[in-house]
Amino acid sequence: MRKPALKEIRQRFEKYSLDAILVSNLDNVRYLSGFTGSEGAILVSQNGNYFLTGSRYTTQASEQTKGFIIREYDNREKEISDLISKLNIKSLGFEPQYVTFEAYNRLLKRLQDTKLIPIAEGLDSVRNKKEGSELTLIKEAIRIASESYLDIVGRIKIGIEEREIALETEYLMRKKGAEKVSFDTIVASGKRAALPHGIATGKRIKKGELIVIDFGARYQGYYSDETHTVVVGKPTTKQKKIYQIVKDAQEKAFDAIKPGVDVTKVDSAARDYIGNAGFGKYFGHGTGHGVGLAVHEMPHISPLGKGVIEEGMVFTVEPGIYIPKWGGVRNQRSCR
Amino acid sequence: MRKPALKEIRQRFEKYSLDAILVSNLDNVRYLSGFTGSEGAILVSQNGNYFLTGSRYTTQASEQTKGFIIREYDNREKEISDLISKLNIKSLGFEPQYVTFEAYNRLLKRLQDTKLIPIAEGLDSVRNKKEGSELTLIKEAIRIASESYLDIVGRIKIGIEEREIALETEYLMRKKGAEKVSFDTIVASGKRAALPHGIATGKRIKKGELIVIDFGARYQGYYSDETHTVVVGKPTTKQKKIYQIVKDAQEKAFDAIKPGVDVTKVDSAARDYIGNAGFGKYFGHGTGHGVGLAVHEMPHISPLGKGVIEEGMVFTVEPGIYIPKWGGVRNQRSCR
Repeated sequence: MRKPALKEIRQRFEKYSLDAILVSNLDNVRYLSGFTGSEGAILVSQNGNYFLTGSRYTTQASEQTKGFIIREYDNREKEISDLISKLNIKSLGFEPQYVTFEAYNRLLKRLQDTKLIPIAEGLDSVRNKKEGSELTLIKEAIRIASESYLDIVGRIKIGIEEREIALETEYLMRKKGAEKVSFDTIVASGKRAALPHGIATGKRIKKGELIVIDFGARYQGYYSDETHTVVVGKPTTKQKKIYQIVKDAQEKAFDAIKPGVDVTKVDSAARDYIGNAGFGKYFGHGTGHGVGLAVHEMPHISPLGKGVIEEGMVFTVEPGIYIPKWGGVRNQRSCR
Repeated sequence: MRKPALKEIRQRFEKYSLDAILVSNLDNVRYLSGFTGSEGAILVSQNGNYFLTGSRYTTQASEQTKGFIIREYDNREKEISDLISKLNIKSLGFEPQYVTFEAYNRLLKRLQDTKLIPIAEGLDSVRNKKEGSELTLIKEAIRIASESYLDIVGRIKIGIEEREIALETEYLMRKKGAEKVSFDTIVASGKRAALPHGIATGKRIKKGELIVIDFGARYQGYYSDETHTVVVGKPTTKQKKIYQIVKDAQEKAFDAIKPGVDVTKVDSAARDYIGNAGFGKYFGHGTGHGVGLAVHEMPHISPLGKGVIEEGMVFTVEPGIYIPKWGGVRNQRSCR
């Protein structure tokens, strides 16, 4: 399915002198093959590309994938390692951040004549640049989530429980076609808004509280991720001030986004703005992250992020300010 | 919190000659400490029990846990390994089925003087026997799910989409107090009922089709898992026959459950019955699995399962028959 991506992986063979790469992370498997099931692995080798899966998925795999030789397994590890031996693969790349120590050792035991080589940066970056068909699906996921939010926000009233807001948002997203929600919806109100990941609780909304709502929809495998901060009633001067700083910081980050710019520069555009406004110590997370077949993926728009902005990347820009015992503000939208 | 469980872990020190055990799986962390957050690790050592977590969770950790020295980290790996060095731990047990190859290697690099020892069977079995407070929560999860199902089953009519049934079931479980659903609800109708894990689709229910519905609720961390097979209209003779075989196989398994019985015997009680009825090749999965802080946990009631039934275990008994291009039947309930 993904001819350019497979080619890109093959080019990595040269760098690492690998005979083959075993791909086991299911997002990467889906990306490379189009397979949507929950069990399977890919072997990209110089002697062909193999797709291996259990009996309940072989029909689906042959329908969804192209350019792969499909192998059905009963015993996953045995049959993957038998194939590797049969293909005489002497050096095999694998994804060290997804393979457990236990799985690695079982593979090692079966493959006495193969060198197992962790691919340090993983394969995940292959997914960084989205193509047109992917952007269409992400936009649809965003549309479902955004429309649901606009419907729900009018129903936020004094006395409603956080978890009621979360549940209704999730229900509506599913009604509108989301196959699932991106993550447990965050609804953090009042002092709880100071928690960047405050999962919705039974707390009731009070007048004048800041409410951070963070939610998303998945559509045909692709995620959205969106956050808003609202107040029921009239915001205070301080609330308005913090809100405006976060909004301006977000605009600064948007302005910094151009192909070729280091991801840390996008982060620092927002971070420095918040720092200069005197709230630096209240912004403890990265500015954003990639969104695609995973809701959190590369690039990491943070002080420790690596690489540069490229045409086709999809990522969030979501700076925030969280003041303990007071509350917090975060806003975000996915941008291309 | 769990004094007997911590004691049980300490007893393992003797067997493995370990100075300490690092627990990173969050279900195990929650079980041992009572901590419900999404980030943290436990170090059980001969010089005290430590709870390590990031800044956003230290307050919560000090409120929820007892008997732990709480350490806040910025850099998780650095500060865990610094503590291990400081405590002069020479041999450290870890969970090989949860630690990635990458994390293992980063730990190894930082801990030159410590031997890292994978605990082959893991710590998971510590959770096998449930105590009273756990049973109460599991029963509540079951109550929420079962009541929701009974409400929904009357609404299953010809023409309704599978995913509508799934969504309404999930919505109702949440309304009734589930903090989340156990897994994406399975609604597999008609020929799709032959798929043991047929996630609900847009397919509409037709008259006379078998419909397998598999769902569950989570309540205060504890899961339920339940399956039913129904028909809208009058079942055929063959449908009734298969249904009865599955039901009888389940009863055979129930009859086999007694403390001290090997888990494989419980599996074979159901499996042999289905085999003798001539449908052995259509029952491709294990008979059941433990349910608790994870929706799938030990014991594994399958031909490859290990150990014996013990008082206080909670597990499913869910044999099934799946006939390709025809349909399938599975029923289950959690039992003590």
